[in-house]
Amino acid sequence: MQTNFERIKNDIENLAKYNATPGQGVTRSAYSKEDREARNYLIDQMEQLGLEIWEDGFSTLFGRRAGKKADAPAIMIGSHYDSVVHGGMFDGVAGVVTALETMRILEEINFENEYPIDLILMNAEEGETFGPSTGVSNSRAMLGTLTMGELETVKNRHGQTKLEALRAYGVEPDLKAAYRDPKTIKHFIELHIEQGPVLEEEGKDIGLIEFIPGIGRFKARFFGETEDSTAPMKKRKDALVSASKFVLFVDEWMKSLGVGIAGTVGKLTITPNSNQFVPDFVEAVIEIRTFDTKTISPKEIKDKLIHALRLIQEETGVRTELEEMARINYSNPTNPSVMNQSNVEKMQKICHQLGYSYQIINNGTGHDAMMMTDFVSTNMIYIPSKNGVTHHPDEWTDFDAVKKGADVLLHLVMDISKDQEG
Amino acid sequence: MQTNFERIKNDIENLAKYNATPGQGVTRSAYSKEDREARNYLIDQMEQLGLEIWEDGFSTLFGRRAGKKADAPAIMIGSHYDSVVHGGMFDGVAGVVTALETMRILEEINFENEYPIDLILMNAEEGETFGPSTGVSNSRAMLGTLTMGELETVKNRHGQTKLEALRAYGVEPDLKAAYRDPKTIKHFIELHIEQGPVLEEEGKDIGLIEFIPGIGRFKARFFGETEDSTAPMKKRKDALVSASKFVLFVDEWMKSLGVGIAGTVGKLTITPNSNQFVPDFVEAVIEIRTFDTKTISPKEIKDKLIHALRLIQEETGVRTELEEMARINYSNPTNPSVMNQSNVEKMQKICHQLGYSYQIINNGTGHDAMMMTDFVSTNMIYIPSKNGVTHHPDEWTDFDAVKKGADVLLHLVMDISKDQEG
Repeated sequence: MQTNFERIKNDIENLAKYNATPGQGVTRSAYSKEDREARNYLIDQMEQLGLEIWEDGFSTLFGRRAGKKADAPAIMIGSHYDSVVHGGMFDGVAGVVTALETMRILEEINFENEYPIDLILMNAEEGETFGPSTGVSNSRAMLGTLTMGELETVKNRHGQTKLEALRAYGVEPDLKAAYRDPKTIKHFIELHIEQGPVLEEEGKDIGLIEFIPGIGRFKARFFGETEDSTAPMKKRKDALVSASKFVLFVDEWMKSLGVGIAGTVGKLTITPNSNQFVPDFVEAVIEIRTFDTKTISPKEIKDKLIHALRLIQEETGVRTELEEMARINYSNPTNPSVMNQSNVEKMQKICHQLGYSYQIINNGTGHDAMMMTDFVSTNMIYIPSKNGVTHHPDEWTDFDAVKKGADVLLHLVMDISKDQEG
Repeated sequence: MQTNFERIKNDIENLAKYNATPGQGVTRSAYSKEDREARNYLIDQMEQLGLEIWEDGFSTLFGRRAGKKADAPAIMIGSHYDSVVHGGMFDGVAGVVTALETMRILEEINFENEYPIDLILMNAEEGETFGPSTGVSNSRAMLGTLTMGELETVKNRHGQTKLEALRAYGVEPDLKAAYRDPKTIKHFIELHIEQGPVLEEEGKDIGLIEFIPGIGRFKARFFGETEDSTAPMKKRKDALVSASKFVLFVDEWMKSLGVGIAGTVGKLTITPNSNQFVPDFVEAVIEIRTFDTKTISPKEIKDKLIHALRLIQEETGVRTELEEMARINYSNPTNPSVMNQSNVEKMQKICHQLGYSYQIINNGTGHDAMMMTDFVSTNMIYIPSKNGVTHHPDEWTDFDAVKKGADVLLHLVMDISKDQEG
């Protein structure tokens, strides 16, 4: 049983037509005319499959294939169909069309799924449209972590708030109605292009994710006093000396914690950054990556950083402060996004059966799936990106590579939508 | 006994006329037409005083007032009369005209000096004309630290080498002839504008220098390996971690050496300097300032830095290297330029007698006097610079302030050109 290459290619090419910048990559921003046109195309496709179609209170589009167990939690598959400005044809869309094609095959073969299967089609994933920390809106609305405050404040390049843009799109947002109890979702599965070069370089068809490392970002600031390089050593408050102590602290601390975590001070901003002056200010950016949830908690990480800075301040007299650069609307950013391991193993078997090569990729950028892991069993399937290019007109994935991803998705859905216990 | 305000003003204004950029500050580059015109003016002034006039083999101009002791070492006074492009009227010229005016007074009062008094008028002090490290040429030629190699390689903005420019100026350089045994110089005294705001801010007439701190500059480089921020801690070669160890080493080492030295890592260049990557390269600039010659020798400083980098390399696996940023043509840059303390005390008394306020200033930029300190007893007299502006058309010192400096110079020369023992 395999998906249909021509239909997948046709879907991708059709969706690429709903584009505000023809000839200059794909631009399909959330709540735009092109969003509406793409949505109508997708609704039409779902209607042809007889799916039960609805929108939540936040313009997220669903299409359900009922299961034998009417009230059971659903297998949810899909992705987003919005793009960045002058983006590519595949980011998000690959996940949308492979989920749609999965639904087509299930219908064609009259597949008897125990659990309902929900196609989820999201239109506001990209953080570019309304600025950083505004992405993965649909999944956040669905799981109750998006606020009216965000809708009223963040603005797109036309100066519209998210709320105004939604209303102009014809949607009066209702966050209560959009909320969905996580218990009603059995698994969430999202296919996405890799947005990196690894699969292409390694010649693999499929990337399987066990977890997306957690990212905690902090800024540590050191407020010293500038002086000429002739200033006596004893009375100095050298911000770079303090920052250097901090760099070493982070390195030694992280090494002591073992393989579950890594931490880097990768960036310093120093003023005046001249050999002739004692530095009076340093800002250090710390990036903490976590690979499991048991090594240390996000709160412990932050507390320890604050404590270390306090000790350095006492020792050097250089005032310090810490700012957490949390992606404010994502929950627990410092924790890794851990995928369902059982499903990863199932997909490995599926790849073997289909003759597709695969590898585990535990790097990853932000996706709706990452948001979902805190609430429901989640998995991702990566397919190759040519040269790792993404968010650019040159973004490309061969249609055949998309089809292979669709096949893995299809077979996983066929497996997990049956009652494992029954 | 005081110098003559009008003559000083007249000299400064006359010299300012020999200028390649009228209306846009003073431009009088070494070996230019304006250099020649200014030189003719100065020769004319010296001839009126009956001085014995000669040039060395490097176009340095001398005018001698013979002393009773014909073969005794000379008191040498003067400065440079070249300027930067679009510079001011006072840098260098203040020292030239105050020395010239001193000679006039000595002649007027028929002063009986035991030692010869040499007026030295230099035309290639600014390092701008032929590029960095090419300044203070006349004093370097006189003391044998300038090479033919420099003359043949460094070029001015017209593409001429120093040698070509000298020949076009009518001088065939003869470095052997230009060399002067330091034993023939009893004291070298240079008056100069402060090129900083301190005297003006403090409302002082005169700045006395006990020493110009030595400057040693080094670049330390750290060659690590960049990796994603998810890279395991154990296998990292983080260039910033190594550089941080070095920053702390320099700070602790300098503190341990006491008040005779200060050292700063004031500048880091980090690549890629992104929170998402382990830094793979850091260049640190270290500036060592020395306030005496007994705390540590220049060689010990360099050896210790190399040793510290080697230890860090062994500990971290990050390759290191050290580059000394010596001002290549100045001798022993890491050593302070220590002035004759007895003469500083004499000048303090002279200021008291004349009713001029003064203060000790132990900061300083490069001057011929700095070059001289390694070879002969040297002193400098600073006079205020308006707003500290220098090397700019707005450079200004009140003529009366120049005159006060000339008075101090005159009285010092009168004192030290007598036989102290006799």
